[in-house]
Amino acid sequence: MTGFELPPSLSIHGNEEIAKGILSRIWGKRGVFTCTVANTMTSTIPGISDAGDTPELTLFTPAADAELLVLGRTVCMEGIPINPGGIPTPATLTQAALELSGIPCFIVNGGCKVVPNIPCIEVGGEYGESIATGKAVKHVRHVYEMGRILGESLAKTNDYVVISESCAGGTTTALAVMKAMGVLTENLVSSSSPKNPKELKSRLVAEALAAASVGIGDLRHDPLKAIECVGDPMMPVNVGILVGAAKHVPVIVGGGTQLTAVIAAALELEPGIVGNVFQGTTRWLMADPNSSNARIMDGISPDVPVVYVNMDYSASPYEGLQAYEWGYIKEGVGCGGASVAAIIGSSGGITCDDLLDKVHAIYRDLIGRD
Amino acid sequence: MTGFELPPSLSIHGNEEIAKGILSRIWGKRGVFTCTVANTMTSTIPGISDAGDTPELTLFTPAADAELLVLGRTVCMEGIPINPGGIPTPATLTQAALELSGIPCFIVNGGCKVVPNIPCIEVGGEYGESIATGKAVKHVRHVYEMGRILGESLAKTNDYVVISESCAGGTTTALAVMKAMGVLTENLVSSSSPKNPKELKSRLVAEALAAASVGIGDLRHDPLKAIECVGDPMMPVNVGILVGAAKHVPVIVGGGTQLTAVIAAALELEPGIVGNVFQGTTRWLMADPNSSNARIMDGISPDVPVVYVNMDYSASPYEGLQAYEWGYIKEGVGCGGASVAAIIGSSGGITCDDLLDKVHAIYRDLIGRD
Repeated sequence: MTGFELPPSLSIHGNEEIAKGILSRIWGKRGVFTCTVANTMTSTIPGISDAGDTPELTLFTPAADAELLVLGRTVCMEGIPINPGGIPTPATLTQAALELSGIPCFIVNGGCKVVPNIPCIEVGGEYGESIATGKAVKHVRHVYEMGRILGESLAKTNDYVVISESCAGGTTTALAVMKAMGVLTENLVSSSSPKNPKELKSRLVAEALAAASVGIGDLRHDPLKAIECVGDPMMPVNVGILVGAAKHVPVIVGGGTQLTAVIAAALELEPGIVGNVFQGTTRWLMADPNSSNARIMDGISPDVPVVYVNMDYSASPYEGLQAYEWGYIKEGVGCGGASVAAIIGSSGGITCDDLLDKVHAIYRDLIGRD
Repeated sequence: MTGFELPPSLSIHGNEEIAKGILSRIWGKRGVFTCTVANTMTSTIPGISDAGDTPELTLFTPAADAELLVLGRTVCMEGIPINPGGIPTPATLTQAALELSGIPCFIVNGGCKVVPNIPCIEVGGEYGESIATGKAVKHVRHVYEMGRILGESLAKTNDYVVISESCAGGTTTALAVMKAMGVLTENLVSSSSPKNPKELKSRLVAEALAAASVGIGDLRHDPLKAIECVGDPMMPVNVGILVGAAKHVPVIVGGGTQLTAVIAAALELEPGIVGNVFQGTTRWLMADPNSSNARIMDGISPDVPVVYVNMDYSASPYEGLQAYEWGYIKEGVGCGGASVAAIIGSSGGITCDDLLDKVHAIYRDLIGRD
């Protein structure tokens, strides 16, 4: 055991020794944050995704999130991405963490139908089809290779790398990929809604696997094929960045159950990265009664720990933020990973209270502007 | 006058007080290097560009340079970009400077016909037509805006920003833009050949201005229009990055006479950046008897100084490198700016001798591989 002492803003699930070992190596060091934006037509199937006010608007959410992170405002749509009911995108927390910590942020275009109006790192991806087609993602191997190059490149000049996503519909595609790989057989993935539409997702995943003629576990050793059939375009580039960077420096996989599919795929392609990777997420996700990120990760590898930030919006004066405590949103746009990174980069100097204050300032500014 | 003492590896032309003021503010600090790659069909006009073994190969040079910087090898072509006669691309020096200093490098795709096989920052540009058309560059205002956002973004988390280019044919387009703006009336731009084809360039520029119905100085106050008519796609994004970044942090404009057009355009759009900008280049360029970067810059603004690295390849055992002393190459791929930045970032710890040793190691590796 290292003598590393965890600040109250963070908690660990899984192999504590590995988690503390990584944390102590990068504590106070300088990292880089990437967010991969992508569209899958899966998100437009009514009922599948709440990451947008309507099924069609879910296609605008990734671009709008990216614009928020880079410009502090949206260009591709009016206002900011909200769930039905007006609950704001978790990008507000990501923005708070990045601004407080000064961690550089790069947007990667995994493949978008609605492209953000900002400079993005291009990797040759296209937006994805509904997984019901069984042919969900194009150019997977090329994009994976571009991701690997990007990961190697970022690792050269940064002490650690954060990867993350904004891709509506991504928990369903994650479930499909993990079923194709056989690393998850039960439907344990999360949702941005407290009413996780589990049956609808399971039905769609079964349909997708049938369309691709893939049985559960058939593609255990070919995760890129699994992504090609039933994944989304956020995955290949993030798997590549993870594999490319984690050979050299620690990688924080910033995200919830969507990102567990990326971890599973990367471990299959490059098992040697264990010990240099942890998932960075939120208390909200870990506490969700309708999913179990912990059980998913235990099944993938007990040695890829989860480090989560103990953010709590219950005392927030804004109902839209309080809703995070009622099971809405929980994760996304790397809000957990960015918060964990901000705490790491500041050697624990940045606290959950600091992040909350900053989220309030950002939120006030955004709602004042609408 | 500041008390800043210049190391022997660097020299200054122009306003020394401004140059030393900027240098002292960023001495030992952390910067970021960007290289914008672009194609203009202008480079395929026989005799115009020597940045490639044949006129057609000049279109491959930017992509190959970018691959060299990121991967350490080329993918889009066999071997490395050479001038006729086998003189290696200046990217070898850029690579040496970046590797020694650990400065992060990002490739920006200004608009390429031959796209590099690496992740690039995309800004919505397209490759440019020959300036003889009078309609040389598309989407100039959009790309400028993307560049501005990128510059602002890079300035947030870096102490200074280096911009640069690999765009064959770029001295001719620079001459055309500066004539359209009226900031240069004499043909003082450089060439990667010691036999600068001045007459051919002047004739082509006259033809281009006539095709665009633009007289000398007509577009003094509309540099983006000048670029649209007779520029190249490297320019709008670099003008944008310069304007966006230099409002917040110093910017090193890494390049020779090609980049003076970018400086002239940026100063017209945002005169307030004076005092936060210098050109970073090489002794080879400044000493060129067939061009005068110094006189061009004096004409644009005496208050944008030139800081140049005193690299000397005369004692190199390799003829391909000695050729730099005979007037070949001289600048490109930000080799001067990257060298200046490496010296700055290391507080002068990195010297010209260190850079030379590293260039030799890289060159041996590259020729051994072919």
